[in-house]
Amino acid sequence: MDKSKKIIIAGSGLVGSLLGLRLLQRGFDVSLFESRADMRKENISAGRSINLALSHRGIRALKLAGVDEEILSNAIQMSGRMIHTLDGQLALQPYSTRPGEFINSISRRTLNIILMDAIEKIKPDAIHFKSKLIRVENDCQRFVIETEQKEIKSMENAILIGTDGAASVARKTLFELTPHLRFNYSQTFQNYGYKELTIPPGKDNTFVIEKNALHIWPRGNFMMIALPNPDATYTATLFLPYHGELSFDRLDTKKSIMEFYQTYFSDAVPLMPDLESEFFEHPTGHLYTVKCSPWHYEDKILLMGDAAHAIIPFYGQGMNCGFEDVFVFDELLNQHMSWNNLFESFSKLRKPNADAIADLAEDNFIEMRDKVADPVFQKKRQLEMNLEKKFPEYYSKYALVTFRPDISYYDAMVKGRKQDEFLMNLCADLNKEWGEKELDEIFNSMISQI
Amino acid sequence: MDKSKKIIIAGSGLVGSLLGLRLLQRGFDVSLFESRADMRKENISAGRSINLALSHRGIRALKLAGVDEEILSNAIQMSGRMIHTLDGQLALQPYSTRPGEFINSISRRTLNIILMDAIEKIKPDAIHFKSKLIRVENDCQRFVIETEQKEIKSMENAILIGTDGAASVARKTLFELTPHLRFNYSQTFQNYGYKELTIPPGKDNTFVIEKNALHIWPRGNFMMIALPNPDATYTATLFLPYHGELSFDRLDTKKSIMEFYQTYFSDAVPLMPDLESEFFEHPTGHLYTVKCSPWHYEDKILLMGDAAHAIIPFYGQGMNCGFEDVFVFDELLNQHMSWNNLFESFSKLRKPNADAIADLAEDNFIEMRDKVADPVFQKKRQLEMNLEKKFPEYYSKYALVTFRPDISYYDAMVKGRKQDEFLMNLCADLNKEWGEKELDEIFNSMISQI
Repeated sequence: MDKSKKIIIAGSGLVGSLLGLRLLQRGFDVSLFESRADMRKENISAGRSINLALSHRGIRALKLAGVDEEILSNAIQMSGRMIHTLDGQLALQPYSTRPGEFINSISRRTLNIILMDAIEKIKPDAIHFKSKLIRVENDCQRFVIETEQKEIKSMENAILIGTDGAASVARKTLFELTPHLRFNYSQTFQNYGYKELTIPPGKDNTFVIEKNALHIWPRGNFMMIALPNPDATYTATLFLPYHGELSFDRLDTKKSIMEFYQTYFSDAVPLMPDLESEFFEHPTGHLYTVKCSPWHYEDKILLMGDAAHAIIPFYGQGMNCGFEDVFVFDELLNQHMSWNNLFESFSKLRKPNADAIADLAEDNFIEMRDKVADPVFQKKRQLEMNLEKKFPEYYSKYALVTFRPDISYYDAMVKGRKQDEFLMNLCADLNKEWGEKELDEIFNSMISQI
Repeated sequence: MDKSKKIIIAGSGLVGSLLGLRLLQRGFDVSLFESRADMRKENISAGRSINLALSHRGIRALKLAGVDEEILSNAIQMSGRMIHTLDGQLALQPYSTRPGEFINSISRRTLNIILMDAIEKIKPDAIHFKSKLIRVENDCQRFVIETEQKEIKSMENAILIGTDGAASVARKTLFELTPHLRFNYSQTFQNYGYKELTIPPGKDNTFVIEKNALHIWPRGNFMMIALPNPDATYTATLFLPYHGELSFDRLDTKKSIMEFYQTYFSDAVPLMPDLESEFFEHPTGHLYTVKCSPWHYEDKILLMGDAAHAIIPFYGQGMNCGFEDVFVFDELLNQHMSWNNLFESFSKLRKPNADAIADLAEDNFIEMRDKVADPVFQKKRQLEMNLEKKFPEYYSKYALVTFRPDISYYDAMVKGRKQDEFLMNLCADLNKEWGEKELDEIFNSMISQI
């Protein structure tokens, strides 16, 4: 692989940092430009969400860079979903009956710091903070950076990899090559926003609800979730429509917020002493999907992570998908092709998978909101859990996506959807019950058909 | 309706000019800003395509502004499609058996000039050429214009209507309000480009092929069309993939162009003496669809025409749809609502119809390219033509879209697709033949079901 070109990485968030680390480990000349301040020195928000669910696809990529163990030692295992019903009942739905199949709550900040520290161990001045790509010139052969000191710096004989997130500036440069590049682009907003809130620790810094679970308060048209943090807090996130009867629009007074919470999340209210103030102080986040193609321009610019494929968070796969980008990119580097061929191969391999996880995440949001109350759907979930218990070789769509990095997102989607359709058809008759023998038959017939 | 606000129209192309004319007729304070020079004074291209097919929806809107007769007197009737087969055979497929149902070939330039002349009869200084919107300020309450003299002019207490085409600057201002506005946006490119070429007049300025037809050379994966002009020329347009075996990529020498034309359009070659030189001199145009929402921001900015919904040209409806925007906008003006409500109602009414014609145009491109050789499809076209002949009250999908402005694009799409499905099912059996009596039965069963 040609190492004469400098590699400019725009954005040292999660994907940019892991990519930078891996490329430095492989001996490339890497510089990262990050528009924010160094979060290790200044107290700034680490970005969109406070904590994230790290799972097998992400872990596989971290392992490649040798940082998986340190990162997992800072994470909290979540073995299943803890459902909080309207009347305060709890029900744990394990993610898997197989060992090792759990997801991990990790702080975005901790994860990013571990990655940046690892980069600076190899190249202390690799990351330039408060510095950003401002434009590209000369048919993308010159990249213009503004430094912390507001100096304008040009870099040539370089390639730019844009890992600067959903609002990517690198992507904007591709967009502006329209129509010459014929850049296909879509951004699609949900009619839902989200609000992050805190559940603080109990006495003596104890976890006030189950520690090793992802908590969900499903309420049909809206929901709250909460993920544990190592300091015994939880970050709760409310997903709610902007407009309508139950919406952010209507939650505009302390009274309306408390009434809403008392009605729909009564078991959470005593756990959230700062609810009223946080609700007003914290911003309402937007949920949107970005798809584009091509992801690259010749051998000059490539997009990765959210810059190429921002998705909504309902499969817990945004970060994992971005880390998997790095894993796939690294594999392609072993094949010694030209940068142009590498960028093309990368896009060709990853685009269908990025589209698949985007679509799965949208499906799952609808599923969580609208289907959770459907009796056929509930019966299907029950049947599926029975199948998973009895046949360890059976992977549900969720398990394929989450625990099987050896199967692509696209293949997981196709197989998972077929399985779902097969089981939903069986469950259309709500009175049917299946004994052990019938479960065998269902399983055998499913694997023979799918 | 509140007339205290100035109306700024960005772009005096076809839709902007018709809108400006109509609003001036209604007594509004209208100014148009056009980034190009005045085409009546300088010899500039009038834009994307040289001539266009004007049909009933467009004519209805022109009638409203009283310019339909003058415009139609400059148009050439096209009563049907003249199919040119590979071996040079000709077959005329009439658009309709009903009187008055033809489409009209009109020069974009002539049409635009008639509209601009009509504007200046009411307000001589209404159109500012070589002037353009460069940005909006102060939460879209100030519109900043750069004039021909490079002066910067601000306008307040105004509303901006963006009719500045597929690459709209007005739309960009909405885009940049993301994520605050949650602007949904997509641009989708075809893998096909187009090239405009000329068929000059014959001896004594005569039309060298049938005058009153839209000529089509369908070739499966690509095609050429030609529309007549009043000066006895035809504007031919070649639609061809960019890449692949038969593609613009491969037509890079005079020899390859001539060989390609001799093989696929042999009857056209003698009619196109400038083929070789024009092919290199004329640019290759791109084909893309733009969808977005919302089309407006509060009571400040509204998009119309291609700026809101650029479509590919395969239904001949891009201009007609834009003119229909003006017709609908005018109807809403009669309802005396606030600008904000008007913009909202306009978007609500028009967006499903703009999406429908965009989808219909994409369907039709696939139909023209890939289905034309399908025997079931051919049988269905034959059956449909028999039905149209026998039952004047039967409107095919094409006829609903083209000749029935009383039916929305959306309703035409839904009804047309149902009819198509119904007829395709009947034609699955290729050996079936239908006599007069069976045609009656088919027709009755279709109208009872759809």
